[in-house]
Amino acid sequence: MHSEQIALDHGSGGEASAELVEKVFVPLLDNPYLRELDDSAVVSLNGGRVAMTTDSYVVDPIFFPGGNIGSLAVHGTVNDLCMQGAQPLYLTLGLILEEGLPFQDLRKVMKGVAQACKESGIKVVAGDTKVVSKGHADKIFINTAGIGLIPDTINVSARNARPGDVVMINGSIADHGIAILTRREGLQFQSSLRSDSAPLNRLVAAILDVCPEVHVLRDPTRGGVATALNEIASRSDVAVQLYEEKIPISAPVRSACEILGLDPLYVANEGKCLAILPREQAEEVLKAMKRHPYGAAAAVIGEVLERPQGKVLLKTQVGGTRILSTLTGAQLPRIC
Amino acid sequence: MHSEQIALDHGSGGEASAELVEKVFVPLLDNPYLRELDDSAVVSLNGGRVAMTTDSYVVDPIFFPGGNIGSLAVHGTVNDLCMQGAQPLYLTLGLILEEGLPFQDLRKVMKGVAQACKESGIKVVAGDTKVVSKGHADKIFINTAGIGLIPDTINVSARNARPGDVVMINGSIADHGIAILTRREGLQFQSSLRSDSAPLNRLVAAILDVCPEVHVLRDPTRGGVATALNEIASRSDVAVQLYEEKIPISAPVRSACEILGLDPLYVANEGKCLAILPREQAEEVLKAMKRHPYGAAAAVIGEVLERPQGKVLLKTQVGGTRILSTLTGAQLPRIC
Repeated sequence: MHSEQIALDHGSGGEASAELVEKVFVPLLDNPYLRELDDSAVVSLNGGRVAMTTDSYVVDPIFFPGGNIGSLAVHGTVNDLCMQGAQPLYLTLGLILEEGLPFQDLRKVMKGVAQACKESGIKVVAGDTKVVSKGHADKIFINTAGIGLIPDTINVSARNARPGDVVMINGSIADHGIAILTRREGLQFQSSLRSDSAPLNRLVAAILDVCPEVHVLRDPTRGGVATALNEIASRSDVAVQLYEEKIPISAPVRSACEILGLDPLYVANEGKCLAILPREQAEEVLKAMKRHPYGAAAAVIGEVLERPQGKVLLKTQVGGTRILSTLTGAQLPRIC
Repeated sequence: MHSEQIALDHGSGGEASAELVEKVFVPLLDNPYLRELDDSAVVSLNGGRVAMTTDSYVVDPIFFPGGNIGSLAVHGTVNDLCMQGAQPLYLTLGLILEEGLPFQDLRKVMKGVAQACKESGIKVVAGDTKVVSKGHADKIFINTAGIGLIPDTINVSARNARPGDVVMINGSIADHGIAILTRREGLQFQSSLRSDSAPLNRLVAAILDVCPEVHVLRDPTRGGVATALNEIASRSDVAVQLYEEKIPISAPVRSACEILGLDPLYVANEGKCLAILPREQAEEVLKAMKRHPYGAAAAVIGEVLERPQGKVLLKTQVGGTRILSTLTGAQLPRIC
């Protein structure tokens, strides 16, 4: 580590986060499951493959257009499970509450949890609540951990991208990060900005139904599309080329990014799924995605190339090509 | 709820915690798994029974005699799994770090995690790190969630205590809570005070090996022995009678409790297991416990009676009987 203290960057999902994992966590806790570093671990249990994952949520503000910290905490873990091809089944819920949190806020958050569970079909089976004195936490932090079953026919992994594959996404990018940021900063310039937070398990099931041979699924949360694709390019030893003009982005998000000086390719999404699969299946998968409410704006946004290995390239609208690196620095802290 | 805000009591593991669970969480998230309210949920997966549990750790201080927040977070979840009769297998680790936490503290905590995993045999398979700005959390909070397999022959539950059973414990009570409290308050009067934090899965395996028909296993953490036994008495519709003079307690802990005005029966333990089982098996189980390093001071401390249902009675050393109710109020905040 270069620094001697934890900085906001270490929670960004970008380079500093990866350094922390690689230099501190993996060496101390080393085991074959952890080393995969996918969205979920895959463990064997009773002869089947089980996906297992966790995320803590510290989003600020806890209520935002399109959701709250409770619904987000369920969606995030449901999505991490289904990005491994798993059917989400059971969830645990760990709450850390700041003394003085109004009960009505807790109820509102828990209604978000309940609604997200209902929509996705996952069940909260165990929970825990801790309270810390005022000023020692910020309102509410939530941890969710989940497990799900991976059908025998499915084998998705960040290692599986192959040259010739296409890269698809189920809709517009950067909606979550921009909605949080503008709400947090009290920016009123776009009232239509809304998080895309959503459970993607039924969309993923629809994709896998028409194309069980999908190579990679990944939800581009912290670090955005660019960081997620860098991880995939690096693990699969391939290059990913994106076409800027094909990437769905709403006009309000685009202008908010311009005003704020943010690159939407690095902004968090919470209801988006990157799918990498053989080109010959692209059309049918696109149709399946578009039939689903969370895939109405789905698009093919790029392709997998052999070289330069480990790199993500962006073909810009004016015809140039630039390299998209992994996120460095905490572009947006406490976005999830 | 009587109050309109979250108070420290709501995280005590006592009456206010139970009220929060019963009035807010269960109605909103209701499902048969959650309703059991045991240390772990028991779900079925691939035709087997899987225990699943979570706990967040906010202990202050993060380093204490006998452990740190990292080892505690692993022990706590391992113990919740094995109290359901499960063999702990896989763990997730969610960290919330305060900006500015020294790296060497994080490393020390993670070494605690690693050592506890090694001793118990559980594996961290997935993790997540969030960082919040200085003053929005207190150094480090850890969530662990774990899963384990329950052998077909085992059926332990807080509902299974039967009149005629004996109540056993594997050693002295109140060590953890008193070690934390004296360290936190800078009380130096007893240098020998040390947390009992330990992984109990091998001890529990030894118990189940000689007595697979154990009725109840429970680790008396927040709320202590009295609160844990109240839950069992209430769920099993029985009474529990304890014999004060049989309850192991170290001399330093006893005098610390006297000085601090605390009842050791309500102070948290992190390496203790209550076992309730048929009287005719007691001797053999006691022998098995005593052979294990974490059971050297094991004792039969009470028995299960038919009436008064739902109550815990204490036969005092002077020959009287008093009722031990559930913990009310947060006797010791941030003890785990």
